[in-house]
Amino acid sequence: MIKVTSYKSGNEYTYGLGATIAMEYLLKKKEAVRAVILHPDFRSEETICKINSICGKDIPVSVEAKPFNILSKKENCFVICVIEKKPEPIRDGNHMVLVNPSNCGNLGTIVRSCLGFGVRNIAIVGPKAADPFDPKTIRASMGALASVNVEVFGQFEDYQKRFPSNNLYPFMLDGSTILQETKINKPFSLIMGNEATGLDPAFKNIGQPIRIEHSGDIDSLNITIAASIGLYEATKSC
Amino acid sequence: MIKVTSYKSGNEYTYGLGATIAMEYLLKKKEAVRAVILHPDFRSEETICKINSICGKDIPVSVEAKPFNILSKKENCFVICVIEKKPEPIRDGNHMVLVNPSNCGNLGTIVRSCLGFGVRNIAIVGPKAADPFDPKTIRASMGALASVNVEVFGQFEDYQKRFPSNNLYPFMLDGSTILQETKINKPFSLIMGNEATGLDPAFKNIGQPIRIEHSGDIDSLNITIAASIGLYEATKSC
Repeated sequence: MIKVTSYKSGNEYTYGLGATIAMEYLLKKKEAVRAVILHPDFRSEETICKINSICGKDIPVSVEAKPFNILSKKENCFVICVIEKKPEPIRDGNHMVLVNPSNCGNLGTIVRSCLGFGVRNIAIVGPKAADPFDPKTIRASMGALASVNVEVFGQFEDYQKRFPSNNLYPFMLDGSTILQETKINKPFSLIMGNEATGLDPAFKNIGQPIRIEHSGDIDSLNITIAASIGLYEATKSC
Repeated sequence: MIKVTSYKSGNEYTYGLGATIAMEYLLKKKEAVRAVILHPDFRSEETICKINSICGKDIPVSVEAKPFNILSKKENCFVICVIEKKPEPIRDGNHMVLVNPSNCGNLGTIVRSCLGFGVRNIAIVGPKAADPFDPKTIRASMGALASVNVEVFGQFEDYQKRFPSNNLYPFMLDGSTILQETKINKPFSLIMGNEATGLDPAFKNIGQPIRIEHSGDIDSLNITIAASIGLYEATKSC
């Protein structure tokens, strides 16, 4: 049986908290689910029935209170999904590339937008990047992480070498063209920087740097907003 | 002297937490600032000097530790700005209209996007809307709330009567036209629903309902993302 401990990035397992996220993993990435834990007070017979039916004999389902005390401070969490962390190499195609994102909530929100706009391969570039497997990231993605590939790269050059034919579009406050006037060619890589510091100025010399026009009344758009507007423009049908 | 208490929506005052937000209010909405409180451990001479210079004889600046224990659990908050809540009627022009937004963080993030895209008049429609004056809203807006007008309406009809010539664009999952194919005429009102439940189906018969196309892999885009993509399209220069 798997012992539930509070999450650390070195752990072999991570956790999906809540029935919605557990169902996403059971439906979309069942092969990574190692166990499902139900709270003794969980009363939704319909959900319990669905979970048991999907888990069958392959995935143990237990009823325990203790793991909820360890993992979840939210009183309305009644299901924990124990997920094995596996390498998920990203594939050829359109990519979102996040360089040193620092906040798990933002990372998860961007993953959800990526899935919404059909970009299923996401590169996270370190060395100081937020953990894409953190339960907070999974929660913010509302389970979208179960449907995408996320690969972590030590540095941008490692990513670039693996996908030499992708068209690179770094999003920068001083990008030389504005988003709506830039033709985004596929396969594309939309590259976003850190929440506080943006991308290193060296990205000015990489691909076609893009800026999203905004008024001088704010310093910058929120990173989740900038990434999603980029996704919207790059993938829209007309 | 103003007694600092933990924030409640009925309070006469609200609070901007942190030096960045305090500076936004002092620079953009000084007339609403009633006091500035500095933490005894605050050491940034440059910021203290700026604050004292702007406050002059009009706004009291004190040094106390207790209000920080009451208002801020964040250890890195060293400045509190006490802000008087005043009615701020919205004006003619382009509007963002948020119907029953439930989360202060989302509300603040949308306000920041509004300011970024030059939409400075925001209508909040109740009866169950998050409080635009909550310190959490102000924090999430990163101080952008100091630069916009926010007015709360009991119901949508009250808003509509005040601005009969605005073109109404409700954002709905089943909106009849997609965003990039919809001509958004000014003055516009972009109307967004609640995070969990969206807009009431009755909005289908109001103005021109718009949907943002996304894959069936997610139920909906995050409300802050949808609102910001709407703002981007409605205001972009070409």
